[in-house]
Amino acid sequence: MSTRPASQPACDLLSERFAAVRALTEALVMQLSDADATVQSMPDASPAKWHLAHSSWFFETFVLRDYVAVYTLHDERFPFLFNSYYEAEGSRHARAARGLITRPTLAEVMAYRAGVTAAVLRALPDLPNEAIALVELGCHHEEQHQELLVTDLLHLFSCNPLEPAVWAPAPKQPVAVPPPIRWIEGASGIVEIGHDGRGFAFDCEGPRHATLLAAHALADRTVTNGEWAAFIADGGYREPRHWLADGWAWVQAEAITAPLYWREGDGRWTRFGLDGRRAIDPAAPVTHVSFYEADAYASWAGARLPTEPEWEAAASAHDPHAGNFLDSGGAVEPRPSTSGPAFFGDVWEWTGSAYRPYPGFVAAAGAVGEYNGKFMSGQFVLRGGSCATPRGHARASYRNFFYPHQRWQFTGVRLAKDI
Amino acid sequence: MSTRPASQPACDLLSERFAAVRALTEALVMQLSDADATVQSMPDASPAKWHLAHSSWFFETFVLRDYVAVYTLHDERFPFLFNSYYEAEGSRHARAARGLITRPTLAEVMAYRAGVTAAVLRALPDLPNEAIALVELGCHHEEQHQELLVTDLLHLFSCNPLEPAVWAPAPKQPVAVPPPIRWIEGASGIVEIGHDGRGFAFDCEGPRHATLLAAHALADRTVTNGEWAAFIADGGYREPRHWLADGWAWVQAEAITAPLYWREGDGRWTRFGLDGRRAIDPAAPVTHVSFYEADAYASWAGARLPTEPEWEAAASAHDPHAGNFLDSGGAVEPRPSTSGPAFFGDVWEWTGSAYRPYPGFVAAAGAVGEYNGKFMSGQFVLRGGSCATPRGHARASYRNFFYPHQRWQFTGVRLAKDI
Amino acid sequence: MSTRPASQPACDLLSERFAAVRALTEALVMQLSDADATVQSMPDASPAKWHLAHSSWFFETFVLRDYVAVYTLHDERFPFLFNSYYEAEGSRHARAARGLITRPTLAEVMAYRAGVTAAVLRALPDLPNEAIALVELGCHHEEQHQELLVTDLLHLFSCNPLEPAVWAPAPKQPVAVPPPIRWIEGASGIVEIGHDGRGFAFDCEGPRHATLLAAHALADRTVTNGEWAAFIADGGYREPRHWLADGWAWVQAEAITAPLYWREGDGRWTRFGLDGRRAIDPAAPVTHVSFYEADAYASWAGARLPTEPEWEAAASAHDPHAGNFLDSGGAVEPRPSTSGPAFFGDVWEWTGSAYRPYPGFVAAAGAVGEYNGKFMSGQFVLRGGSCATPRGHARASYRNFFYPHQRWQFTGVRLAKDI
Amino acid sequence: MSTRPASQPACDLLSERFAAVRALTEALVMQLSDADATVQSMPDASPAKWHLAHSSWFFETFVLRDYVAVYTLHDERFPFLFNSYYEAEGSRHARAARGLITRPTLAEVMAYRAGVTAAVLRALPDLPNEAIALVELGCHHEEQHQELLVTDLLHLFSCNPLEPAVWAPAPKQPVAVPPPIRWIEGASGIVEIGHDGRGFAFDCEGPRHATLLAAHALADRTVTNGEWAAFIADGGYREPRHWLADGWAWVQAEAITAPLYWREGDGRWTRFGLDGRRAIDPAAPVTHVSFYEADAYASWAGARLPTEPEWEAAASAHDPHAGNFLDSGGAVEPRPSTSGPAFFGDVWEWTGSAYRPYPGFVAAAGAVGEYNGKFMSGQFVLRGGSCATPRGHARASYRNFFYPHQRWQFTGVRLAKDI
Repeated sequence: MSTRPASQPACDLLSERFAAVRALTEALVMQLSDADATVQSMPDASPAKWHLAHSSWFFETFVLRDYVAVYTLHDERFPFLFNSYYEAEGSRHARAARGLITRPTLAEVMAYRAGVTAAVLRALPDLPNEAIALVELGCHHEEQHQELLVTDLLHLFSCNPLEPAVWAPAPKQPVAVPPPIRWIEGASGIVEIGHDGRGFAFDCEGPRHATLLAAHALADRTVTNGEWAAFIADGGYREPRHWLADGWAWVQAEAITAPLYWREGDGRWTRFGLDGRRAIDPAAPVTHVSFYEADAYASWAGARLPTEPEWEAAASAHDPHAGNFLDSGGAVEPRPSTSGPAFFGDVWEWTGSAYRPYPGFVAAAGAVGEYNGKFMSGQFVLRGGSCATPRGHARASYRNFFYPHQRWQFTGVRLAKDI
Repeated sequence: MSTRPASQPACDLLSERFAAVRALTEALVMQLSDADATVQSMPDASPAKWHLAHSSWFFETFVLRDYVAVYTLHDERFPFLFNSYYEAEGSRHARAARGLITRPTLAEVMAYRAGVTAAVLRALPDLPNEAIALVELGCHHEEQHQELLVTDLLHLFSCNPLEPAVWAPAPKQPVAVPPPIRWIEGASGIVEIGHDGRGFAFDCEGPRHATLLAAHALADRTVTNGEWAAFIADGGYREPRHWLADGWAWVQAEAITAPLYWREGDGRWTRFGLDGRRAIDPAAPVTHVSFYEADAYASWAGARLPTEPEWEAAASAHDPHAGNFLDSGGAVEPRPSTSGPAFFGDVWEWTGSAYRPYPGFVAAAGAVGEYNGKFMSGQFVLRGGSCATPRGHARASYRNFFYPHQRWQFTGVRLAKDI
Repeated sequence: MSTRPASQPACDLLSERFAAVRALTEALVMQLSDADATVQSMPDASPAKWHLAHSSWFFETFVLRDYVAVYTLHDERFPFLFNSYYEAEGSRHARAARGLITRPTLAEVMAYRAGVTAAVLRALPDLPNEAIALVELGCHHEEQHQELLVTDLLHLFSCNPLEPAVWAPAPKQPVAVPPPIRWIEGASGIVEIGHDGRGFAFDCEGPRHATLLAAHALADRTVTNGEWAAFIADGGYREPRHWLADGWAWVQAEAITAPLYWREGDGRWTRFGLDGRRAIDPAAPVTHVSFYEADAYASWAGARLPTEPEWEAAASAHDPHAGNFLDSGGAVEPRPSTSGPAFFGDVWEWTGSAYRPYPGFVAAAGAVGEYNGKFMSGQFVLRGGSCATPRGHARASYRNFFYPHQRWQFTGVRLAKDI
Repeated sequence: MSTRPASQPACDLLSERFAAVRALTEALVMQLSDADATVQSMPDASPAKWHLAHSSWFFETFVLRDYVAVYTLHDERFPFLFNSYYEAEGSRHARAARGLITRPTLAEVMAYRAGVTAAVLRALPDLPNEAIALVELGCHHEEQHQELLVTDLLHLFSCNPLEPAVWAPAPKQPVAVPPPIRWIEGASGIVEIGHDGRGFAFDCEGPRHATLLAAHALADRTVTNGEWAAFIADGGYREPRHWLADGWAWVQAEAITAPLYWREGDGRWTRFGLDGRRAIDPAAPVTHVSFYEADAYASWAGARLPTEPEWEAAASAHDPHAGNFLDSGGAVEPRPSTSGPAFFGDVWEWTGSAYRPYPGFVAAAGAVGEYNGKFMSGQFVLRGGSCATPRGHARASYRNFFYPHQRWQFTGVRLAKDI
């Protein structure tokens, strides 16, 4: 992240932004019961209550504890409970056991949040620049947890045979199925990618650097549910030649036959979402597919996935704030595209690039240096942001990353090809 | 169970008993949050909410659905959620996923309970005898789940690093350490054991039958925490010769060094209980030990565990309702014995008998026939009842059973020897 | 085991017996390659080479090392490799890794055997009585390993898609399907069972003691392959009500649909045996069924399994050396019975009795005390001996034991019922 | 691979090469017993006998069966046994069960080899060009299996507590510890990498393409055992900040404290090798380290791993046939370097590059198209070749690949840094 000094108006802006981020997180859980917020449905996911507390722990630890002389911990036992993975911050509660913590209650965690929020707002005007930078980092960190909170909730509710809806469904508009993909030729030769240091970015987005692109084209939109249903109907999940070896092993071990949350009945596909179980919308982007599935689909379609540089070179011409995001209003789900090429929102797009450091990358110093760099093995990069991403959080240089089998995020597919 | 016809006063008595059982269950959860009642801490345990609902499902299914013409299911989706293991009742929610059901909420489950309770009370006067017998069975069934609800809660709270207390602690009275064990010679020759059919019993407690006992003696009390600490101090958990081979494998695989919930610090042992973490009481019966531990302790002590017939022959001379039970008032925990030999309450006592059918055993007909007989492999019998057992639930002929490694119930040890 | 003093003729007899046992073991492996004798097909089984060496280690350790002053270990590294489970003898090679020991070679192990055999024969005349008893124990121990060697080989060869035959097949005689089971009423009232101390027995077979039998009857023969095929055809493996709960879980987890080594093709059942794959013989006793299967079959047939005392009371009237044993000549496989009731040979018969100590049982002192007693949890007793048991090894009081899911031994079923 | 037509002298050359490759494989197993060649020590490894047969199956299937009209399969059951992972070739024996195949014997497999070798030699003059290309591919394929055969043997022998030597040790020459690493500046700007199509290469080595390099330097030699011992002594395996998150999880789950085959005793490190257990040579390259370890070491040393293009750009100036290879004579183990920078032989060098397709990569058509492309997820690239690689097999463009936790190959570390 950048560590520029903060002027007074910058500080006011940051206070506003900080308060808005905190408020959005709390809005997301307004309709949850204590139990909804406590249970963990799989080791990859965390309880909503944990997200609420962990994002507060981040501010409490790296800002209040380290930079506010008079601050006393809200509860001395919370750091053990709510540290996620920062080894430098000491031992911590086992990740897979986060769902066993029925106390503190949701109300107690909300009180913890309120205390931290107030303390940060009080402290902000007097914080040194490096602490200001940590508050800004903390806002982005909390935005990441907003998205996880939503996708973890969706997973939890999907495990309940009653399939309850988290939120009410949106009224459905009939939408024409989009026209076939159009191929847009990308830049070739030397291009620059990576964050240029103006405004906030995570450390892994830089340094900005030159890279060399061969001739290629990207699809003008992501793959739709209707196209995916055709892949299934063509035996896509039964034919090993489309699949990476690890992907095929995963398909067989887990008996995968469709995207996560899809179910077939009477020859029709439905999907489970935050508004319960409904028919798939053939015009909307497919989501909840793993990298293995994305790669297999591309192989079946005679194409491939974009690389990070190809994607970023194309996307940087577009507005990262236009699109279907968490705060778009209405249902949190991918929507059919209605106009020209879009790269942001709806679904994260799997790239074919393994998540590795850019040339010249150096992790940040201190505990926050554990933020990104240590995850640079075994994962693939996704780009663009989803319907569960807060709007301001998206950037052309943003590098999201997950393991190739994971698919409980809103993940989708854009095709690419050599030309 | 027995299936005698019910006279009118018998019906009134049963109504009273039914209402009392239902009320006690509800009293147990009064201080729980929705989250406390929803989370499952291990596959062996179930959420409190599940116990609340399952014990209602039992009455709804086997009494209301089958014997009350006008009854409509409270919710058609509940049988799938709240059937435990009755294969004849169709498919059901996976046991290990019971903790993922955040909806219905605790309040909704309490409403389910209230509906079932009212419907059963309304129906009782007109029920045929075999349904009356099922109501009686259902009361005993619910009492079993009262005990499980308490021990499952204890396990859940033990998984929280904050170690919250479920209930307030009892004031501690200083208690003299009990005198050494006295050996009481048991009956030998032909003795009769098993339930004689007067009053309620589970099917596995009969038929009453003759058995042959060799000369033997039983200890007049169970092993205490102080004695167990001596076993530990003597290297009891590090010396394979005391242990059954399967027990030794378990000790090594699970790194077992003390009873469940015990922890050492500064050379002193504490235990976690429903009142939080406290010092062990050396005079109180040891509890939360597995069959493997019980057997190893007996081997170390130069003794053995009692057999079922030995235990029952000795215990049948004592009052099964005297003792420290769930409804004794005060803390739910084993207490130091203050007078002569006692066989009921405080802790379930591991016997050396595998849980197998008595000669002439025939399982009950219908779905309730799955109640006991199908569990007759791999488990050992415990006798007597514990501090978490409802008082009226204990009987000399009662056969409780668990796998030899399980120890989250209030399980303890009485020694026996050949003479 | 008994520990009587040995007179000179007894010593000569023992020398003969010892030499014969050693020779039979070696005859069993004559047609095996080094590889056949080295590979381990599952943790429950051991390589033939290991059996060859372990049975030698037993004599070397408990007789030669402990009682022969001038004896030097054949190889100081062998005790670590070839101790099976004797904790008192120190650490040892992991059981599941026995198949990784390609050196020493089969030839080197045969040389080890020859050295131990010669040393024991040399030492025998001067051994004290307790060592003589250990030699006798060692012979019986080696006979147990002969049976395991044969059944482990069968399992190994069954894992090879080529399904090679260990030995040539026997010519098949057409055999009439046996008549329906006849029920033989057993003794009731007080009967004595257990070994009486005359001749050799393992410690777990005693003490001889009185027990009480209720009225019952046993089938005059074991269940046949033809009868088992009818159980399968009737949906026996698909109907949970026949099964113990643990058994049903095993059937589902392991997708069990028939006895081990059975396969269906073109509507006909074949089985794999030491002579390769062949059609099942409907008249021969079914074998390679687990306790769970045996219990389910009995339940389906409206019967139950015999208890240990019932079986022993009935069997003690019969000659334990008559029957189809390992040294019967011809194929090692169960054969159709041709005459009246028989209790020995062909297949081990599952009883309904858990393997637990008899009243008054005390394990032998020293390392050999680990022989039996420590296995007395979780297993069920089998009686009678099989086609892979050396003839002299069978006794009415013999207690074999395995876990309820195990079925790679020649295990079968005799029915019993209350009358 | 390339598919050029073969002229007559080219055919003679190929015959010679084919015969030499087949002979070298057989030389490697000359001192193995049938058992040594049959056992599988872990799922990642295969039995020597399987390597011998599989490399023959490759020629039999893709050359003889497909291109020689009169050819009859040596044994119709072998394709099921000896196909490795070619889905297009049908079902096959489970990888983890390869060690259970005691029949065919080693001798029978050698006969299979002889038959295939003779048939290929006979057929060669008349083969069409695409079959010639498959023979050439098969030679390279077999060379890969030569290396695996050696490393799999080493692993097997390491599992034997006797730690037998596969081959006799080489006489040790005292070697001066090498001077500190010197940094060699690499090319920057646009460079070309990838195979240019002249001579044989695997499909994944191409297409040749331009890439952009930033300023950097590579170490002139790989890390030594002495340097690695210093990393250990400095707590390298106990300090999470050096490690990737997945690497740290692996270190803790597997209790990793040193390279594979290292053991400490009396304060000194030894390693197990093909010549048994010996003291580590501080001057020799460290080997049997995983990617996680390589990355952690580089982090500890303030450096990083080279990328593929950096490595290839530097290495292409060096002779790939100079170095310590499988056919160097003497012990198969890494040796201290004695002169200037070397990039080939001794140890495979982990790069920081995930194994992914080059721009424009297209997998070969047909079953051999499963050779490389389908493994392009989750693995990292290694470069250079090891002491177990046949000499002619190394190339600057060669891309070897393994999972980041694997370390039973001869894998080592070269440092790189940005400048």
